[in-house]
Amino acid sequence: MIIIMKPDAREPEIQEVISELHDNDLKEVRMDGAERVVLAVLGDDRVLVRAKINSLSGVDRVMEVLEPYKLASREHKPEGSRIKLNGFSIGGEEIIVMAGPCSVESEEQLDRIAGEVKAAGAKILRGGAFKWRTSPHEFQGLGLDGLRIIKRVKEKHGLLSATEVLDPRQVEAVAQYSDILQIGTVSMQNYPLLKEAGKSKMPVILKRGKWATYKEYLLAAEYIMAEGNENVILCERGIRTFVNETRHTMDINAIPYLKEKTHLPIVADPSHATGKRSLVAAVAKASIAAGADGILIETHYDPTQAATDADQTISTENFATLMSDLRKIAAAVGRTL
Amino acid sequence: MIIIMKPDAREPEIQEVISELHDNDLKEVRMDGAERVVLAVLGDDRVLVRAKINSLSGVDRVMEVLEPYKLASREHKPEGSRIKLNGFSIGGEEIIVMAGPCSVESEEQLDRIAGEVKAAGAKILRGGAFKWRTSPHEFQGLGLDGLRIIKRVKEKHGLLSATEVLDPRQVEAVAQYSDILQIGTVSMQNYPLLKEAGKSKMPVILKRGKWATYKEYLLAAEYIMAEGNENVILCERGIRTFVNETRHTMDINAIPYLKEKTHLPIVADPSHATGKRSLVAAVAKASIAAGADGILIETHYDPTQAATDADQTISTENFATLMSDLRKIAAAVGRTL
Amino acid sequence: MIIIMKPDAREPEIQEVISELHDNDLKEVRMDGAERVVLAVLGDDRVLVRAKINSLSGVDRVMEVLEPYKLASREHKPEGSRIKLNGFSIGGEEIIVMAGPCSVESEEQLDRIAGEVKAAGAKILRGGAFKWRTSPHEFQGLGLDGLRIIKRVKEKHGLLSATEVLDPRQVEAVAQYSDILQIGTVSMQNYPLLKEAGKSKMPVILKRGKWATYKEYLLAAEYIMAEGNENVILCERGIRTFVNETRHTMDINAIPYLKEKTHLPIVADPSHATGKRSLVAAVAKASIAAGADGILIETHYDPTQAATDADQTISTENFATLMSDLRKIAAAVGRTL
Amino acid sequence: MIIIMKPDAREPEIQEVISELHDNDLKEVRMDGAERVVLAVLGDDRVLVRAKINSLSGVDRVMEVLEPYKLASREHKPEGSRIKLNGFSIGGEEIIVMAGPCSVESEEQLDRIAGEVKAAGAKILRGGAFKWRTSPHEFQGLGLDGLRIIKRVKEKHGLLSATEVLDPRQVEAVAQYSDILQIGTVSMQNYPLLKEAGKSKMPVILKRGKWATYKEYLLAAEYIMAEGNENVILCERGIRTFVNETRHTMDINAIPYLKEKTHLPIVADPSHATGKRSLVAAVAKASIAAGADGILIETHYDPTQAATDADQTISTENFATLMSDLRKIAAAVGRTL
Repeated sequence: MIIIMKPDAREPEIQEVISELHDNDLKEVRMDGAERVVLAVLGDDRVLVRAKINSLSGVDRVMEVLEPYKLASREHKPEGSRIKLNGFSIGGEEIIVMAGPCSVESEEQLDRIAGEVKAAGAKILRGGAFKWRTSPHEFQGLGLDGLRIIKRVKEKHGLLSATEVLDPRQVEAVAQYSDILQIGTVSMQNYPLLKEAGKSKMPVILKRGKWATYKEYLLAAEYIMAEGNENVILCERGIRTFVNETRHTMDINAIPYLKEKTHLPIVADPSHATGKRSLVAAVAKASIAAGADGILIETHYDPTQAATDADQTISTENFATLMSDLRKIAAAVGRTL
Repeated sequence: MIIIMKPDAREPEIQEVISELHDNDLKEVRMDGAERVVLAVLGDDRVLVRAKINSLSGVDRVMEVLEPYKLASREHKPEGSRIKLNGFSIGGEEIIVMAGPCSVESEEQLDRIAGEVKAAGAKILRGGAFKWRTSPHEFQGLGLDGLRIIKRVKEKHGLLSATEVLDPRQVEAVAQYSDILQIGTVSMQNYPLLKEAGKSKMPVILKRGKWATYKEYLLAAEYIMAEGNENVILCERGIRTFVNETRHTMDINAIPYLKEKTHLPIVADPSHATGKRSLVAAVAKASIAAGADGILIETHYDPTQAATDADQTISTENFATLMSDLRKIAAAVGRTL
Repeated sequence: MIIIMKPDAREPEIQEVISELHDNDLKEVRMDGAERVVLAVLGDDRVLVRAKINSLSGVDRVMEVLEPYKLASREHKPEGSRIKLNGFSIGGEEIIVMAGPCSVESEEQLDRIAGEVKAAGAKILRGGAFKWRTSPHEFQGLGLDGLRIIKRVKEKHGLLSATEVLDPRQVEAVAQYSDILQIGTVSMQNYPLLKEAGKSKMPVILKRGKWATYKEYLLAAEYIMAEGNENVILCERGIRTFVNETRHTMDINAIPYLKEKTHLPIVADPSHATGKRSLVAAVAKASIAAGADGILIETHYDPTQAATDADQTISTENFATLMSDLRKIAAAVGRTL
Repeated sequence: MIIIMKPDAREPEIQEVISELHDNDLKEVRMDGAERVVLAVLGDDRVLVRAKINSLSGVDRVMEVLEPYKLASREHKPEGSRIKLNGFSIGGEEIIVMAGPCSVESEEQLDRIAGEVKAAGAKILRGGAFKWRTSPHEFQGLGLDGLRIIKRVKEKHGLLSATEVLDPRQVEAVAQYSDILQIGTVSMQNYPLLKEAGKSKMPVILKRGKWATYKEYLLAAEYIMAEGNENVILCERGIRTFVNETRHTMDINAIPYLKEKTHLPIVADPSHATGKRSLVAAVAKASIAAGADGILIETHYDPTQAATDADQTISTENFATLMSDLRKIAAAVGRTL
């Protein structure tokens, strides 16, 4: 931590900072510059509440040297993590595709979609049982019945399943029926939910909050990991920007950036990142070219009939074409799919 | 709802949209323009899933005419709502100030702050018992002990209390000890929590998500109201923008804009909206000048010692000065404080 | 400047940085922490190209201690600047109001508006002669004829005038006819224009770029000041955010923040910051409560007939009411209007 | 255009809108809904100033049906444009790479870089002669000498050149020495400059303003095209978002989105879009996978010695490796490079 004092800070104010450091068993190097005094703090200052120092009267700014997350960082674990699933893993050479409808509407619907995405090469069936919508007046999902459908269908087709969980009270039930917990964008800082997901020890797809910096995102992963669950899969799904002609803005920079900072695998969700069916294929290809370890796609045999997110759902027919295009990109970056 | 067809939409595609409308008991007015066909939908089309129409192959864009929220809208209830509390109300002529520490640290701490803010004119004591922090390695609050402290202290000083609730499982406990539930920015779309807050019938301060448009914000309020709880107080607390020199950007436009669209009262939180102690007073004054019905302020007799949010906490001494400044602004806009 | 080396930086990489510093006559303090080496640079490192250091192979990040602007900073000139105009100044106790139409359409139009805003208490007539619009197919202003009209009208009514300049080739002409040059948001980093405005030595209202951080904004002011022109008036006019229900988001935090960092006066433009006529009054009041030194308002006796920016133009009748409301707010913050 | 009246609009207010439409030779379809009256406008309403209608007292909102740009739209010209250059074109099957230093520093520097990028397969040499920096205290470019160097070097190596122009007064000179004019992000709405670039009839790379919606961006292209110059090449170079860990956020969605809306070719600039050397390759690959027609790369044999933008400049050695990687991606999407 580097502490920049105000230009007019008086000596007693400087001493107050220094004694706060000493109280926390930290040492300082003092530099008296032409305009200001700067204190550099030695030692692991993660114990120090940065804000407390910042609030001392002579302090202008505090700059962090260490990243505030630890378990998720590359410094902590230099080689990339592979999240092992039943029969394959995420984070290795193979790119994993997860596909399915936004919401489970019936067993017939899910069965048909599962068959078609499996045939096209998807390994994980996505589909929500508990869908909370932005408006209380919209379709809200099948609940426990949906979970049972997911379990039957994925087992029939030899797929794994990923299902969203929104409420800490649902974690146990979802863990019973599904292989992977998915935590949605609005829940990225739902700490009680992160904690339950951590305790469950289940693989977790943690979607990035649409407002979250990379640091905040990795700190959310850290919450899950701090409970002893290292099976965290990151997911870039678009951020909120001033661009209102697409639903969100895919932050493609996030993929190589996060790869540098963390050992966790990263998948991309071009369906939510664009919100527009005609853009999904191009952004899926871009994500793999940028280094994503997997892709989430919303697909339905008849997107028009999808109860939710119909705007961004591609047909299973287009999905199959996309898979063959993605295979070419995967090969071009030295990976398999 | 207005449906803009693509320039090259064929007649069967147009008919597909029309029959979807008829299936939903809606009528259309068809307009064949020079470049495109436009369909205007008559009737209350809130029942229609906009996205479904949008996903039909000949459709270019769908534009909404009706706002998607209803209970929260001024059209539904033209006069402003007053949320009645014990002895006063929010949303009337009087501006209500809520003040206190970010976190409850001890009974002594809260008791001293409560006495000082009461003396300065605050009516509601704010203070968190369950504080989840961005990092799992930071102070996390006193929990149930904190709730008991809040109850004893607020009763001793004749104040009401507002306390944050983050987990749907905590709603019942917090409702027992506190007068007002506060739902924080990261929870604005935590639907299970909104639903529990709705069922509790307690007054709720619903903070705006730092990524939320006005429409999304009012839809979140609608979730609570849809459970039969009309006691919702909105709170503008800053949004996430590209400006990184302040913690958030206070969206002052939100105050008059929301006043036009909704009958719900609106308070402002200049502490979080700036994240910088030296800016709090100016933004508090601006909020009242813009029409806010109340103000939330983080204050502590020794901000340096605050366990959380020390950067943005003002001293109780400065709080008292601010109160007298706010009284002048309140008078200048024809209100009392 | 603080230089954070990578955790795995080798000694020759560290030495490379140090010798780059020495080549620039700078000294360093080296701190060997547990995880990394940190170098603090002593001396005025503004001469150093930060990016060059940042690009050395062992360097992880570079953090600046000194603000990159100098002439505009409070450190350089602690007391607030007053920009002296003919008969009054901006930046003192008095709040200055500038009002007028978005575009000058005719002498009759401007004459009538000038009379009405003068009567209500405005001191400066605003109005564009060269109006470039977002679309090439919209009204583009009267040009030199407009400048002549402005000059005649402002002199007749004993007002000063502020006129936008967009092209470095226009600076001389505008300087001849108008008292204040206005540089619009899209021109904030139009360096050739800033340079000409600097050379003119005229008072300049420099509007904030809707994408600009505070640092970038003050650096743009620095461009003008570096030419020997200290008569710069800042203007917060709204920034671009994800909120699409208003035209821009008024960054009210900017007013107290910039007041801390710079000695330059700051005015606010609630017309552009909201883009919506019904929000202008509330945001104008908020701006004065937050400490603005002046206000720019778009007004017209018949806003419906305004050729440009009709959405955000208030009637001269409402302007007169607003002036009396602003006077009360000014008094509440100890100023005059 | 669709005009949504306020719920409480009175009949004379409705008639006022209708007569405004008739004054502009437009016809309306009136729909009296349950809550509001809606007017749909027939005919080419681009002539109508939307804002004027919006400002009428009974009007709530106005929604556009036609895009405000015309020459740049796919509706106007369905097949993609190819910008013909000397020996090749941009917008066809071949992906064009433009590479070079941020700034021209000397003939030796540019000559060496030109040789290396040519050998690796670049067709266009980029490099700025007039570099205006964010701070007036930084390196500002070689000016006319730089232009002469560019001309000699590009001719020697059989490359074309693209050079930034910032000042309308420079257009003629740059057009004399360089093959392509480049208009930078801060100049996207510098209308005098756009107009001069239009008049020059030269090929123009128009970079997207970092704050610009797609609509605003295409309107800026329209400015150039309205002068009779159809040789416009769009360039996505990153937008300003809340993410502050990268310099900008590459808006990868923009590539397929703009391809749908416009016939103009689109290139990508991963150097500025990331601002971080280690991210450039991944984002370059993603851009081609997403459908970009070309790539701009900042490269230098010794990035550390680059006078400007050193952070984001890759070595010519890494550039050569990147080119071979890009060739694989190009092939995977059925194109050549």
